[in-house]
Amino acid sequence: MTKTQQVRLAKRPSGKIDADTWSLTTEELPAITAGQILVKIDYISLDPAMRGWLNDVRSYVPPVGIGEVMRSLDIATVVESTHPDFAVGDTVSGTFGVTEYAISDGRNVQRVDLGVAAGPTWLSTLGMPGMTAYFGLLEVGKLRAGDTVVVSAAAGAVGSVAGQIAKAKGATVIGIAGGEEKCRVLTEELGFDAAIDYRNEDVLRRLREVAPDGIDVYFDNVGGDILDAALANLRRGARVVICGAISAYNADKLPPGPSRYMSLLVFRASMTGFVVFDYADRYGEAISQMSEWLAGGRIKSMEHIVEGGIPRFAETLDMLFTGANTGKLVLAL
Amino acid sequence: MTKTQQVRLAKRPSGKIDADTWSLTTEELPAITAGQILVKIDYISLDPAMRGWLNDVRSYVPPVGIGEVMRSLDIATVVESTHPDFAVGDTVSGTFGVTEYAISDGRNVQRVDLGVAAGPTWLSTLGMPGMTAYFGLLEVGKLRAGDTVVVSAAAGAVGSVAGQIAKAKGATVIGIAGGEEKCRVLTEELGFDAAIDYRNEDVLRRLREVAPDGIDVYFDNVGGDILDAALANLRRGARVVICGAISAYNADKLPPGPSRYMSLLVFRASMTGFVVFDYADRYGEAISQMSEWLAGGRIKSMEHIVEGGIPRFAETLDMLFTGANTGKLVLAL
Repeated sequence: MTKTQQVRLAKRPSGKIDADTWSLTTEELPAITAGQILVKIDYISLDPAMRGWLNDVRSYVPPVGIGEVMRSLDIATVVESTHPDFAVGDTVSGTFGVTEYAISDGRNVQRVDLGVAAGPTWLSTLGMPGMTAYFGLLEVGKLRAGDTVVVSAAAGAVGSVAGQIAKAKGATVIGIAGGEEKCRVLTEELGFDAAIDYRNEDVLRRLREVAPDGIDVYFDNVGGDILDAALANLRRGARVVICGAISAYNADKLPPGPSRYMSLLVFRASMTGFVVFDYADRYGEAISQMSEWLAGGRIKSMEHIVEGGIPRFAETLDMLFTGANTGKLVLAL
Repeated sequence: MTKTQQVRLAKRPSGKIDADTWSLTTEELPAITAGQILVKIDYISLDPAMRGWLNDVRSYVPPVGIGEVMRSLDIATVVESTHPDFAVGDTVSGTFGVTEYAISDGRNVQRVDLGVAAGPTWLSTLGMPGMTAYFGLLEVGKLRAGDTVVVSAAAGAVGSVAGQIAKAKGATVIGIAGGEEKCRVLTEELGFDAAIDYRNEDVLRRLREVAPDGIDVYFDNVGGDILDAALANLRRGARVVICGAISAYNADKLPPGPSRYMSLLVFRASMTGFVVFDYADRYGEAISQMSEWLAGGRIKSMEHIVEGGIPRFAETLDMLFTGANTGKLVLAL
């Protein structure tokens, strides 16, 4: 029997996640049966989407139930196996949840190759954020060489990859991020052409300065005023990719939408939402291309790793909403 | 010399158009010179876009200048001509403005065939509203047979045609309009499958009832709460066509945008704006198809004709914003 500590959803938050949202529990896992694996979690992915999974509303995945282990993507090591596809010692990724150990029947579990990249990178550039950036920019945003691309939350998990993919594809790339240090990382370390610090600069005016001919692709992770500033500065035929809206996730009622959405008409532009899971059958293609870019130094994978394991889950998740992380936020066990 | 009465822009309105916005003037037109025509206006088109032309902002056409004759599309009769393409007695359409007579060099003036349809129909189904409905629905909205289509301002100039085109193409069509009588016209006279009276019904709830599987194409002329209600009830892969936002045109500052725009993500949907002028080289194709539908009774052209000429321009235009018209609003001279 294996003892495991877990975070469970105790109460659905209305607005901000608080101390009542979670309960920290410990349970004994049963012995595995035929065709199962027991995994020990190494890294837990912290994602803005987690906030959405707590709401009891219709969405692209069902909400986490009250009393259930909080859903999360993890990198784990197989410690026991009666499953033909997995051996003890394999490193795998899967939706095991916020827990130390988990039992799985192997469905939706993939082996990951630590020879290609370290565990946390399989949660970032080679994981969901990377897939989201890749298909959002190239398929939904229909990026073309020479485009002017603007990315919000550009120092975040998805944004930092999206901007670098755009550069690799020959675009001019402007990142919007909060704070001087994040902006410095974008231009000095990740190769962005310009960065706008939304905490200290007028985004609308700065966009006009750095993208005087307008924006071809706006990759939005934040919503709110920044989305409006981008809408006001599109180029004809622009594509606005709706990837997320972190500015709204903790609101207890829906905030107003983009008041400048009629710019879509003026600029003959489109605004399109997507869910990365729809591209699941093409992840292999993306991982192959991104691995090549990583190996060649065209893309740098940025992870922000917090040590301390399960008990630090709640405070680590909160960092996403205060913007305390640079790059992909990961909890190490 | 020809004396003509005109409506000129006296003062840009902030918010609602009022008595100070317009001045009624009379002037003498000079004799025409070589290559010109003198036209007598028969019908003036009243369009929601007129409100936008009064704002001093960047848009798809320049604003009307202070002191200039108000811009409008008209149907007119050629009364003098030294232009090789136009003879006295020809009926023409052109942007002659809100005036009794006008001189033109013939640029952007088209002859219209009263044998195909009466003058007002060339301002509605066979004019800009018809072109807008046709290209907005078929090109921007990518309508397919079997789609569930929802049209707002469905008893208006564009909406009434859009709904009928959708029916002709094999869609299920739901119209949203203000008042019982307009709703009756939609279902009993224009063949809509259902109508929702936004003044007396809960649009969100009624959409769930009449389109239980969601909306494939939403053709929006109004913005505001009705756009939000549609966004909440999309089907996967839906196309939202942004044609107009009459609910916002008289606001003195930008109202909030669609708070439910994140539905685009949940439903993998797109919201796309367009300007009908971009399809100018294909108007012939649309007119040919629409004429055939008109002749075969598949589409009925609805015009709301107000008599009284130039002095009644201001009060007639106001009818668009109070929703007093059913079908295309036209001022007869």
